[in-house]
Amino acid sequence: MSKPSRNLQADSRIICEVVTTALAEDIGPGDITSELCIPADYQARGQFVAKQAGVLAGLEVAEECFRQLSARVTFESYKQAGEDFKVGEVLAEVTGPARALLAAERTALNFLQRLCGIATLTRNFVTAIEGSQAVIVDTRKTTPGLRVLEKAAVRAGGGQNHRFALYDAILIKDNHIRIAGGIKAAVEAAQQGAPAQLKIEVETTSLQQVEEAIATEADIIMLDNMNLEMMQQAVEIVAGRTLLEASGGVTIDNVSQIAATGVDLISVGRLTHSAPAIDISLEIL
Amino acid sequence: MSKPSRNLQADSRIICEVVTTALAEDIGPGDITSELCIPADYQARGQFVAKQAGVLAGLEVAEECFRQLSARVTFESYKQAGEDFKVGEVLAEVTGPARALLAAERTALNFLQRLCGIATLTRNFVTAIEGSQAVIVDTRKTTPGLRVLEKAAVRAGGGQNHRFALYDAILIKDNHIRIAGGIKAAVEAAQQGAPAQLKIEVETTSLQQVEEAIATEADIIMLDNMNLEMMQQAVEIVAGRTLLEASGGVTIDNVSQIAATGVDLISVGRLTHSAPAIDISLEIL
Amino acid sequence: MSKPSRNLQADSRIICEVVTTALAEDIGPGDITSELCIPADYQARGQFVAKQAGVLAGLEVAEECFRQLSARVTFESYKQAGEDFKVGEVLAEVTGPARALLAAERTALNFLQRLCGIATLTRNFVTAIEGSQAVIVDTRKTTPGLRVLEKAAVRAGGGQNHRFALYDAILIKDNHIRIAGGIKAAVEAAQQGAPAQLKIEVETTSLQQVEEAIATEADIIMLDNMNLEMMQQAVEIVAGRTLLEASGGVTIDNVSQIAATGVDLISVGRLTHSAPAIDISLEIL
Amino acid sequence: MSKPSRNLQADSRIICEVVTTALAEDIGPGDITSELCIPADYQARGQFVAKQAGVLAGLEVAEECFRQLSARVTFESYKQAGEDFKVGEVLAEVTGPARALLAAERTALNFLQRLCGIATLTRNFVTAIEGSQAVIVDTRKTTPGLRVLEKAAVRAGGGQNHRFALYDAILIKDNHIRIAGGIKAAVEAAQQGAPAQLKIEVETTSLQQVEEAIATEADIIMLDNMNLEMMQQAVEIVAGRTLLEASGGVTIDNVSQIAATGVDLISVGRLTHSAPAIDISLEIL
Amino acid sequence: MSKPSRNLQADSRIICEVVTTALAEDIGPGDITSELCIPADYQARGQFVAKQAGVLAGLEVAEECFRQLSARVTFESYKQAGEDFKVGEVLAEVTGPARALLAAERTALNFLQRLCGIATLTRNFVTAIEGSQAVIVDTRKTTPGLRVLEKAAVRAGGGQNHRFALYDAILIKDNHIRIAGGIKAAVEAAQQGAPAQLKIEVETTSLQQVEEAIATEADIIMLDNMNLEMMQQAVEIVAGRTLLEASGGVTIDNVSQIAATGVDLISVGRLTHSAPAIDISLEIL
Amino acid sequence: MSKPSRNLQADSRIICEVVTTALAEDIGPGDITSELCIPADYQARGQFVAKQAGVLAGLEVAEECFRQLSARVTFESYKQAGEDFKVGEVLAEVTGPARALLAAERTALNFLQRLCGIATLTRNFVTAIEGSQAVIVDTRKTTPGLRVLEKAAVRAGGGQNHRFALYDAILIKDNHIRIAGGIKAAVEAAQQGAPAQLKIEVETTSLQQVEEAIATEADIIMLDNMNLEMMQQAVEIVAGRTLLEASGGVTIDNVSQIAATGVDLISVGRLTHSAPAIDISLEIL
Repeated sequence: MSKPSRNLQADSRIICEVVTTALAEDIGPGDITSELCIPADYQARGQFVAKQAGVLAGLEVAEECFRQLSARVTFESYKQAGEDFKVGEVLAEVTGPARALLAAERTALNFLQRLCGIATLTRNFVTAIEGSQAVIVDTRKTTPGLRVLEKAAVRAGGGQNHRFALYDAILIKDNHIRIAGGIKAAVEAAQQGAPAQLKIEVETTSLQQVEEAIATEADIIMLDNMNLEMMQQAVEIVAGRTLLEASGGVTIDNVSQIAATGVDLISVGRLTHSAPAIDISLEIL
Repeated sequence: MSKPSRNLQADSRIICEVVTTALAEDIGPGDITSELCIPADYQARGQFVAKQAGVLAGLEVAEECFRQLSARVTFESYKQAGEDFKVGEVLAEVTGPARALLAAERTALNFLQRLCGIATLTRNFVTAIEGSQAVIVDTRKTTPGLRVLEKAAVRAGGGQNHRFALYDAILIKDNHIRIAGGIKAAVEAAQQGAPAQLKIEVETTSLQQVEEAIATEADIIMLDNMNLEMMQQAVEIVAGRTLLEASGGVTIDNVSQIAATGVDLISVGRLTHSAPAIDISLEIL
Repeated sequence: MSKPSRNLQADSRIICEVVTTALAEDIGPGDITSELCIPADYQARGQFVAKQAGVLAGLEVAEECFRQLSARVTFESYKQAGEDFKVGEVLAEVTGPARALLAAERTALNFLQRLCGIATLTRNFVTAIEGSQAVIVDTRKTTPGLRVLEKAAVRAGGGQNHRFALYDAILIKDNHIRIAGGIKAAVEAAQQGAPAQLKIEVETTSLQQVEEAIATEADIIMLDNMNLEMMQQAVEIVAGRTLLEASGGVTIDNVSQIAATGVDLISVGRLTHSAPAIDISLEIL
Repeated sequence: MSKPSRNLQADSRIICEVVTTALAEDIGPGDITSELCIPADYQARGQFVAKQAGVLAGLEVAEECFRQLSARVTFESYKQAGEDFKVGEVLAEVTGPARALLAAERTALNFLQRLCGIATLTRNFVTAIEGSQAVIVDTRKTTPGLRVLEKAAVRAGGGQNHRFALYDAILIKDNHIRIAGGIKAAVEAAQQGAPAQLKIEVETTSLQQVEEAIATEADIIMLDNMNLEMMQQAVEIVAGRTLLEASGGVTIDNVSQIAATGVDLISVGRLTHSAPAIDISLEIL
Repeated sequence: MSKPSRNLQADSRIICEVVTTALAEDIGPGDITSELCIPADYQARGQFVAKQAGVLAGLEVAEECFRQLSARVTFESYKQAGEDFKVGEVLAEVTGPARALLAAERTALNFLQRLCGIATLTRNFVTAIEGSQAVIVDTRKTTPGLRVLEKAAVRAGGGQNHRFALYDAILIKDNHIRIAGGIKAAVEAAQQGAPAQLKIEVETTSLQQVEEAIATEADIIMLDNMNLEMMQQAVEIVAGRTLLEASGGVTIDNVSQIAATGVDLISVGRLTHSAPAIDISLEIL
Repeated sequence: MSKPSRNLQADSRIICEVVTTALAEDIGPGDITSELCIPADYQARGQFVAKQAGVLAGLEVAEECFRQLSARVTFESYKQAGEDFKVGEVLAEVTGPARALLAAERTALNFLQRLCGIATLTRNFVTAIEGSQAVIVDTRKTTPGLRVLEKAAVRAGGGQNHRFALYDAILIKDNHIRIAGGIKAAVEAAQQGAPAQLKIEVETTSLQQVEEAIATEADIIMLDNMNLEMMQQAVEIVAGRTLLEASGGVTIDNVSQIAATGVDLISVGRLTHSAPAIDISLEIL
């Protein structure tokens, strides 16, 4: 039996829903070209071939695209989410009516290339800090409508998920602090009404604020856009009493130095908002 | 009165629908932090400030995010879609209940940064071929669910839209040709049943195929992944009898040379699949 | 293997959606009569019998009605879309739980009778112009919500589809012309921003306008409500340089004369807005 | 204050929903022609002009089409549902952005022409039986998805509605009778479980069955496809003890004779399944 | 073959829709705990065990919860809707992936406990009046969104359904009477436009009103919040000419006395608005 | 300015959606009785009057019911969520078209009575433990589809919310423990992949398990169905190192004793699964 582990694939009900919307967008009343040029009963076989190396994510989303167009499609995956692939590797093979294959092709690739892009970029960040205690986490800077899929791709790349949305975390940011009248007031307000299962995280921009935060019973302190030296000092001040999250301006070049400061979490917006697509093609045989 | 021109904004009904989905994704049962830290009647004012230079697109999508959360929001835009902005420029100002502003902030920025990224990248390509006859066009390599928005962003950047989806064009690609039994057979099949208002475009990968295509009555010939020399020759062969579209491997470095070959359309997938987000923040005053 | 040909059936995903809505409308919380009078496990068999001669369309829509109500239904079609049927012919047979058969019956027939009505009327028009070069095309004068189904029925009757909607064609009509400041101005405005794959069609109401249109690079000229003589002259003026579409006031009585003028397309609104239903019944055996 | 009366317009929430679907079908990602040829701020005014005489229904549906596209539309109705109009009469006037008017035009007319067609045909049947005690009622033979609208149009024409769907009536038809084991068994089964507020109607095809039905406590007896003589005899047999409904084969030519037999209800399927559209146009001024 | 009988289960299409909404509410982006603690391929078996005696309803709704999460679930019911169960009885057994079982558990139980609660309370009322002619009927005081399910549970408990909603009955209440200008005026207004298949019910609060109602041709008279003596007198006044419905303040203590007055229908709001949940648990083996 | 505090009302977007569904369920194609008996332009005024004492919740949901039926409704609330009301108190007043008032009445009351029932029951529990450190929290035992509303009603009654759903908490229950191989293994598995913002709660059924749980770094320990003595001992064992939650079998009679043991949280399923409705009526003036 496999060991328990966080799913590297998104929930199948959500995949189903997102794919339905995407196919409606691309096919609408029908794929005119294939109807005109390809007989309805023509069978075809295609292979997903990597044109760039990367880390796999989202293959189950691509599969769903074909399945929604024809019950007669077979889809065989040769790689699991989270596995590396090289240029030229065949990731999966799909067989079925040619019209279904061609109608789903673009939508399937749009998902797959984007999600592999996210997994691959995440893997790069994770690799860069190997040996440290820190973990790479994502943010809410995702593509509207695709958050569940993109957060699964981050997991496939070896990162962990930060909060999913506004409803599953208490993250007190600069504006909350200013309006509430300071870190102490904000954290106390949160403590009074917060659901018991949620930790309280506070954003800080100075060491002074870190000291204020540590004086409350906040569970996580975010170091927002601090330089390496400040992060280092924050780690010393906190001395393990709370989790520390580095946030802002994290790049593949500076991430290992950030990890070396001793922070626990490093959140990286670009994992989801700016990962370049990985080039993958569907080759019909 | 203004001159007629293709909308640089997406259809408002579609914006409304996409934003509803996006807010549901991010807010779900509620924004716990703001409810706990900010009084319900606290009013705030925020400015969208550019942290990078770019070309504006999607501001109306950002506006809709706030409007859906509160009828008491006012939103003032200082720039139009398609206009340039510099680092530090204020793009728009939003006023209303602080809880609404903070709850919509991330979703609004996720849209705005992505769409400005696409407009900006498009503008770079358009600028690179200035002086040529060619136009930059987009592809179907868009984010699932956001195609209408992303195609409007391409227009804001100065590009033109290619087909929207599988239903509004006849584009005969390699697989259609192979299955139909050649270019001639495929184009003839299409001509027999095609809706009269659609042109017929054929993908070619060799000059031999270009000659075959020109012998049919295809309206547009796509030159798929040809090098500059082949494109040049194709232009000479065709001699203005059909439109020519260059496609595949187009980068900001080679696009002006491609334009110089005399092709009519240059389609660029990366406009929508790999445009990096433009950094914009909402600063609460 | 069959030859490629435009589908005579609508896209199955769209059929599924339209049928779901229709069944919800007719069944709602439940079919009280059958629940009260028929045992849950009673099996029945029914035949769709033509009470009038006609041309078949929409049988797959009728089938879907039964399938959505019970997984234990079998449905056998004896005719294909586009085939003629005579009075008394059995078009299909359905077997399954009697409650499901009776609950789906009315909805299935409402679809089938309407769609056969459209196919049959289309066939009449197509037959009337046999021997000419012209083709019968449909319009956007369809039943709201059923356009995909009704356009498939037109194809089943031997007609071709004109544009599907406002998004897949550029059709410059009288109001566009007046507001844009004339045919020349309107066509030029369109040419500047039009997606490359779409032809430009212009509506004209006088020979003077036909000449203006031919002077632009419009691809199709619509002759709106012209009499036979004017159409004849338009054909001579245009002399094959663009496609010509006759539109307005087309009836089964004048369509062959219209075709004889040499126009290319004859669009007929009544195919979809006024086709009388064909009488078909479901006889439970 | 007005007197109570059955609404001649459909429920506004349902109109809203049906119109949203219809506009999405016809506009989709956008009305390309108007965007290219008409400035965004161009204002226009249009009049709905009758090209045929008829009875008005559905004007509120047409209005909703424009309202959903622009908040700046004004719509003035000159006629009420149920009123007659002559050739050339102006039914309503709409003012607003030209793009919104042209984008909604076809959808608005598709609804209006169909619904006026139903109201007009209903009025013809109602007029034909004036002076009798009978009322004209509709059936479930409506356009899938438009039943609420079409039943309101029947009321506008002066008819009454029969059951809306399978859930708001107990109508025991031939198949129920056969499966239940006869009229007596079927009616008794229904009586045992029927919700108290619903009458029980039984379909009969012979005078023998009428006698059987009258022996039960059925509230309404349907005379299915009987000739005039049989109907006459049925009226005599029943002698006012239940309501009698004539059904099947009712035309404008035989309806007054049917009414003269003394039946209470005459149901006419063609009111909704085969009413020809009334020609109405939107003339932009 | 079974005898015809009103379904004790709700329509499967409606169950499917309600369950989809409920699972989305409870699972959303994913069941984090099970993903972290339970291997994806771990199989489990669970039994629904009654912790209280009761009457079964809604088991098919519980089953649907599991089926929507995994195609590999098997579900075996040991009891039918409407059957009694005792403390400790096993109602059903479900086998499948442990993650699916645990993710569906709470939602399945929320449905099952509520629906068994309604069936059980209904059974208590039905039992209390055994031997009388009266029937227990429900009201529109149901949980928003669950009416179809709750009305099926009432049937499972042995009650009958009153009107489903505002559209399938004419029930003239105090406010209708006052606004219409009296019982006579209100009933006559209703008679003029009412769909023929619906009976007319009138609410009365005094014997004077009962006399007024009987003078019209109302089909059912509701006795609203009358005491036993008044009900008795109403029964005498009406003398079988219409149905009589007792309504208001019905409890398990007074229901048999109410039935003894001779009324036909006794409507009980608390069947659906205040039935306590029956304690049932899912025990994983 | 008001102090920050957890909303006592549900999110307005969710209220809107739930009410739309509920009105569609109850009104469907139309409220026949009011259409027949009440003139379209008749205005009315109604008051929500308490027939029982209670705590207010859900008035904004009732208001939304009326607003969705008519833009001409005015609604004035005399009480805030969380306030007590006595028998006979007027909670709110609504004015508008009589048809809208009567059509929304039942749905509005169905929401209001249920939500006030929950708030009132919660208040009783909260009052019963006044003076202790413990807080009353809710569970996931809510009505499918209404969770957001019911959790707001718990807050209105003075309780706090526990986790909203499966996605915003890590709650390791008996089955997770058994499958993972013990408390230690389960907590460690969770710690490895858990999103950082979520605490880890572990369910225990024996003091032995409490000791095991305290040895891990679990943040909350649930005492499942323990008697008072065991709870007392658990409090002593834990000695403030984690939060303690009492769960199972909590009634209004034993809750103060449970609170006296020193636990931090007391979760009460019956707040939402079995709260009797509070009797409130809408009296039309």
